[in-house]
Amino acid sequence: MKTVTEIRPIKWDPRRKRLILLDQTLLPGEEVFREYQDPAEVAAAIRDLVVRGAPAIGCAAAFGVVLAALGCAGEQPLHSEACIRGAMAEFRATRPTAVNLFWAIRRMEGLLAACPDPDKIPMILETEAIKIYEEDLAACRSIGDHGAGLVPEGARVLTHCNAGGLATAGYGTALGVIRSAHRQGKIRMVWVDETRPVFQGARLTAWELLREAIPATLITDSTAGSLIASGKVDFIVVGADRIASNGDVANKIGTYPLSVLADRHGVPFVVAAPLSTFDPGIASGEEIPLETRDPGEVTGFKGVTWAPEGMPALNVAFDVTPASLVSAIATEKGILKPPYPAAIASLLR
Amino acid sequence: MKTVTEIRPIKWDPRRKRLILLDQTLLPGEEVFREYQDPAEVAAAIRDLVVRGAPAIGCAAAFGVVLAALGCAGEQPLHSEACIRGAMAEFRATRPTAVNLFWAIRRMEGLLAACPDPDKIPMILETEAIKIYEEDLAACRSIGDHGAGLVPEGARVLTHCNAGGLATAGYGTALGVIRSAHRQGKIRMVWVDETRPVFQGARLTAWELLREAIPATLITDSTAGSLIASGKVDFIVVGADRIASNGDVANKIGTYPLSVLADRHGVPFVVAAPLSTFDPGIASGEEIPLETRDPGEVTGFKGVTWAPEGMPALNVAFDVTPASLVSAIATEKGILKPPYPAAIASLLR
Repeated sequence: MKTVTEIRPIKWDPRRKRLILLDQTLLPGEEVFREYQDPAEVAAAIRDLVVRGAPAIGCAAAFGVVLAALGCAGEQPLHSEACIRGAMAEFRATRPTAVNLFWAIRRMEGLLAACPDPDKIPMILETEAIKIYEEDLAACRSIGDHGAGLVPEGARVLTHCNAGGLATAGYGTALGVIRSAHRQGKIRMVWVDETRPVFQGARLTAWELLREAIPATLITDSTAGSLIASGKVDFIVVGADRIASNGDVANKIGTYPLSVLADRHGVPFVVAAPLSTFDPGIASGEEIPLETRDPGEVTGFKGVTWAPEGMPALNVAFDVTPASLVSAIATEKGILKPPYPAAIASLLR
Repeated sequence: MKTVTEIRPIKWDPRRKRLILLDQTLLPGEEVFREYQDPAEVAAAIRDLVVRGAPAIGCAAAFGVVLAALGCAGEQPLHSEACIRGAMAEFRATRPTAVNLFWAIRRMEGLLAACPDPDKIPMILETEAIKIYEEDLAACRSIGDHGAGLVPEGARVLTHCNAGGLATAGYGTALGVIRSAHRQGKIRMVWVDETRPVFQGARLTAWELLREAIPATLITDSTAGSLIASGKVDFIVVGADRIASNGDVANKIGTYPLSVLADRHGVPFVVAAPLSTFDPGIASGEEIPLETRDPGEVTGFKGVTWAPEGMPALNVAFDVTPASLVSAIATEKGILKPPYPAAIASLLR
């Protein structure tokens, strides 16, 4: 049935102990896989968006910690642990918003602290990273299947940014929902928000949908408003970078306005995310740190500059959608509905 | 007091009978003025956005008709009139949404029909085109001064697209309001929506504000939502391409979502436009034709392409904001407030 290879943006070579990342900064023009042995280079790859998307960042950081453990292995036990913890700190400093990064490192850290035999640390961490990766892949399929149940027949679905195979171990969260719904014959059209400033929609989501022949049309982010108002959008699904315990959702800048428009026009607004995206440690979205990035991402792209020289620009990469505007959250354990505080507490218990 | 030359995107050389346009497709990188003698080339310049902005299109088309009249002058009287009317039809076919174009041509057409002496037609039309131009310049100053009265002290003002000196004979409509408010010391910050797909905000509004040292920060269009939600926007002012007799406003795509966000968060949403932008011939925004442009404007910019080859894109250039979301309309005759049908009828009487 399948004619297209599934997307795998992150690969681990267990024999050569190398992390292999699909360089997403070059998509859709070039498909280049890069090999990593140096954890500092993995951290740079996360910062520079070679790998991006909350779940994918978590997986990449986990394998980055494995590379650190392998590199630190020759040292004295105490030094080795400090060396690994140093790499963990470096990963934590890469991108502040997506909680999956912190969640994955915390899992690795728990094993590191509990391991009585320093020689076994690299192997134990490698096993755990592979587990994180495989769990994410399974979670995405499950999110997709659960979420697809919410999609109406003949739906014109709008999505923002890329919460696809590229943003996860594979299959995607929001695009997982779209993939599963497409297999069920429910998708009439996917409206793809281009997602300024880095064009993850135009570059990555478009690429994923096009290669699987799922009907899709690219729009500028501000076109969504009139499409929604004119009844041409039946369902909105987005991913998430962090979900607070009250259900507030941090996601790519531009998600909040979509949720307001969906609310005004009675269109379901669904968030698709694995359990690793929930942050039980924070009460609401106000506590989520929102990453500010280089203004150069706003003033131009790949060598073309549109703004006049010297023009200041603000580049906040995320916004927060209040739980009150979220119709449902699709997770690997099923669909959450309001009131979210209770639903989320019971999910994470 | 003034240290910067005011922007004049349209000039008429009365001696050599040439229209001179600042090529806005090259801004902000290059300031190139192009000379036109052939009306067909003026029509192409309007289509290709060498000159853009509703009032500016009206002025440019008026001078284009003058060039047509001069070119048609050698012909037999009846042929000459048909020749001018042919050029008028060509201008009407350039861009469907901005009503100022149709308004300006109708003014010219009225004189053409009424003129008993064919030899005098070019001179009469030239006088009228200059009048349209000078009226627009005066209207913009007046709009700016009226609108500035609505701007609060220390305002952080958000604007979309370019409704500036470049979009008019000079001074601007929405930017006229900002200029006048700035002279009154009221402007703390202008948030400039970049305005995808053609970046009129990033290229043109940024350029205008930067050269006059009005404090400004460029943002992606979808950043406006969280700025508004977090209380960092005190006032929104935009231009208009056509205003229906009930007060519905067609303007650059992305205006409608801003009006929804402004409404939700209690931020004044003001439209600035001259009388020539009102269309008494239509009852509501539903009747306004919305221009669809080349998908290539969405998939890339100036030779850089971000979408994968073969990705379909939708490029609707305008959307409609219902009158119920418009706090006020600043015109050269004063400020209109709801209920708009009565206010507009009395204005145009």
